[in-house]
Amino acid sequence: MKFSYVSHLQCPKCDKQYNAGEKHQLCECGSPLLVNYDLESLRDILKPEDLIKRKADLWRYKELLPVQREENIVTLGEGMTPLIPMERIGAEMGIPKLHMKDEGIIPTGTFKARGAAVGVSMAKELGIPELAMPTNGNAGASWALYAARGGIKSTIVMPVDAPKITRNECAIAGANLYLVDGLISDAGKIVAQTVQNQGLFDVSTLKEPYRIEGKKTMGFEIAEQMDWKVPDVILYPTGGGVGLIGIYKALKELQTLGWIPEGKLPRLVAVQSDGCAPIVKAWQEGKKESEFWEGSETLAFGINVPKALGDFLVLESLYETNGCAIAIDDATVLEEQKRIAELEGAFVCPEGAAVFAAARRLREQNWIKEEEVVVVLNTGAGIKYPDTVDFELPTLQPGELITKTEVLIEDQE
Amino acid sequence: MKFSYVSHLQCPKCDKQYNAGEKHQLCECGSPLLVNYDLESLRDILKPEDLIKRKADLWRYKELLPVQREENIVTLGEGMTPLIPMERIGAEMGIPKLHMKDEGIIPTGTFKARGAAVGVSMAKELGIPELAMPTNGNAGASWALYAARGGIKSTIVMPVDAPKITRNECAIAGANLYLVDGLISDAGKIVAQTVQNQGLFDVSTLKEPYRIEGKKTMGFEIAEQMDWKVPDVILYPTGGGVGLIGIYKALKELQTLGWIPEGKLPRLVAVQSDGCAPIVKAWQEGKKESEFWEGSETLAFGINVPKALGDFLVLESLYETNGCAIAIDDATVLEEQKRIAELEGAFVCPEGAAVFAAARRLREQNWIKEEEVVVVLNTGAGIKYPDTVDFELPTLQPGELITKTEVLIEDQE
Repeated sequence: MKFSYVSHLQCPKCDKQYNAGEKHQLCECGSPLLVNYDLESLRDILKPEDLIKRKADLWRYKELLPVQREENIVTLGEGMTPLIPMERIGAEMGIPKLHMKDEGIIPTGTFKARGAAVGVSMAKELGIPELAMPTNGNAGASWALYAARGGIKSTIVMPVDAPKITRNECAIAGANLYLVDGLISDAGKIVAQTVQNQGLFDVSTLKEPYRIEGKKTMGFEIAEQMDWKVPDVILYPTGGGVGLIGIYKALKELQTLGWIPEGKLPRLVAVQSDGCAPIVKAWQEGKKESEFWEGSETLAFGINVPKALGDFLVLESLYETNGCAIAIDDATVLEEQKRIAELEGAFVCPEGAAVFAAARRLREQNWIKEEEVVVVLNTGAGIKYPDTVDFELPTLQPGELITKTEVLIEDQE
Repeated sequence: MKFSYVSHLQCPKCDKQYNAGEKHQLCECGSPLLVNYDLESLRDILKPEDLIKRKADLWRYKELLPVQREENIVTLGEGMTPLIPMERIGAEMGIPKLHMKDEGIIPTGTFKARGAAVGVSMAKELGIPELAMPTNGNAGASWALYAARGGIKSTIVMPVDAPKITRNECAIAGANLYLVDGLISDAGKIVAQTVQNQGLFDVSTLKEPYRIEGKKTMGFEIAEQMDWKVPDVILYPTGGGVGLIGIYKALKELQTLGWIPEGKLPRLVAVQSDGCAPIVKAWQEGKKESEFWEGSETLAFGINVPKALGDFLVLESLYETNGCAIAIDDATVLEEQKRIAELEGAFVCPEGAAVFAAARRLREQNWIKEEEVVVVLNTGAGIKYPDTVDFELPTLQPGELITKTEVLIEDQE
């Protein structure tokens, strides 16, 4: 039995094939490449129950991941994040079977760790000495830290406005870190030039084929955690869209393996900010690709992506599953974030809060039905965004007493 | 088969017994209480292989936890944190079999989640409507969030200097949060008075018996993750010492069950800061209890505890396992924190970095031998302490180029 059942890479636009085990970036035609597996062989060899004894991390799906030699795996124990019932806020929304997949409970505190773990492992397998990427913060932090663990150098460029914590993560990992007085698109241009001048490997979103493979493990885990049944709806915060593309890919692979039922897949929902909603606009207009969103702005930094390279794959996943796309405003995001903490004890990131708000709204519109099983993805820990939360707090002097005031009691209720 | 095999509570100082399933705080004699289980019955009923099919969280050890009715469990999916090899920094230290148990990969980003999960679940089982505690930050954050999930109110008092992120966590959970212009001891006095005036349940460190039970699951997990062998040495950052007391208790319970070998336990090491080292001083002097450490100060906030209520239990665990206690200075902590990130891609908290530094020093002193299997506990995510990391970073203008300078190359090597 082989370690991985990877077969080849293929372009989803022009169908051109490439060998696995070689260094590739985009297809000649400019499209991202997708990784293919020999699922027909694997179908007879691997069964879901074979996974039971394996470690609770994403490498339990090694046959469906591209790394071919175990010694190249660069891991910090990422994956098999909790899938937990959200009964109290679910009741409030009228979705009693609401669940959260909590991607804050992973190394580096964000789902980006999955893409970095598999991407950096592949970079190691391919003998790449140094990688480069632009980032809005979290992806750069994850890739810089995993690269450090893999003994690979990294060059990271991020906007000066990106969360300070992610800057610290890159810097302490020993990355060549640069800030840019601009947007991620400006960072992208600097990285593209550096890649060309210095011969670095470009690991920008979807410019290498393996980040998707890491992200798709969220789809495997949701299915396994639900005992190989799938939910009716999965909602996902969508910037670059790699997570959604990955989950869709995972579900189709599981169908081919016969591990989940043929036919109807969960309806996938792309959640964006109304300050940056290119996918929502394209979906509303029934288009296959999105247009660049001018003047984008949202406090949910991770979904501030005006034009995603994989937009056509995101939109395909929505159309194919009878899903939808929806935008939420920042004020609603902050309100929902507070409500989730008060009722469920989970301090989610703004992107995660947007997804809860989207579930609430889609239930109001009856697009989500009361009896449906719904999974919302929280893509990161709220503690990575300290500045989105601000409270006026009473300060006591030593020896002073707490008095039970009306105001405090109201605050609690 | 029962859900839990809890039998009774017992005082480790005066041996007085108390019923399980009732509300207790300290023993009449002032000592913390320990939870006992019917291990003799359980020995015949439960085997390690029975755990394999259970979920990868701390509730897999439910028979050895105090909650008696499943519906009272308040969980965010905590436990079974990664135990990962640290080969590169281990090689540098001369400890090739160095492992890190990473307690940053858990809800709220700190090992405090374990105590909070079990403590709040027990509070729910006992029908407690509101709890109160003083905190240096992380414990308060975890308890406030788990209390919110359990529908229990909380009153939290923390020093104004406690990490701002933990303040946000309490506030967003809807806790009655107060800052005090003083130390945790000042916060403790305010809480004690409030508990008395308002009849709240006091969940200060060791003043309720269940936090230890949550923490001890770290010991179970280390044993299970090492296939029921135990390491030679376990190093732990020690403030209140609950984790160390818990791990020691867990290992003894596993011996009674026959799941790990009789005889020699891992040598336990209490790691403190040289700015607050009461346990180290007591251990050096061969004493059974520590003395209050005047003027304590360290950037590793979580181990700034001048006098722990359970000091005698911590010291017993060191003496009984031929362990030791060691203090590390803040500058060494920061240096080690950087080295761990550069070599292993793990951004650990300062308390965790102190423990790595302690392993390095004990190896230099040959107290740890080269061939020994060593586990260091990282008690939290580095991202919760943004202010301990500070880097000067180059800022580019859009369109500017990265030039490969000598300085940058040096920085990387």
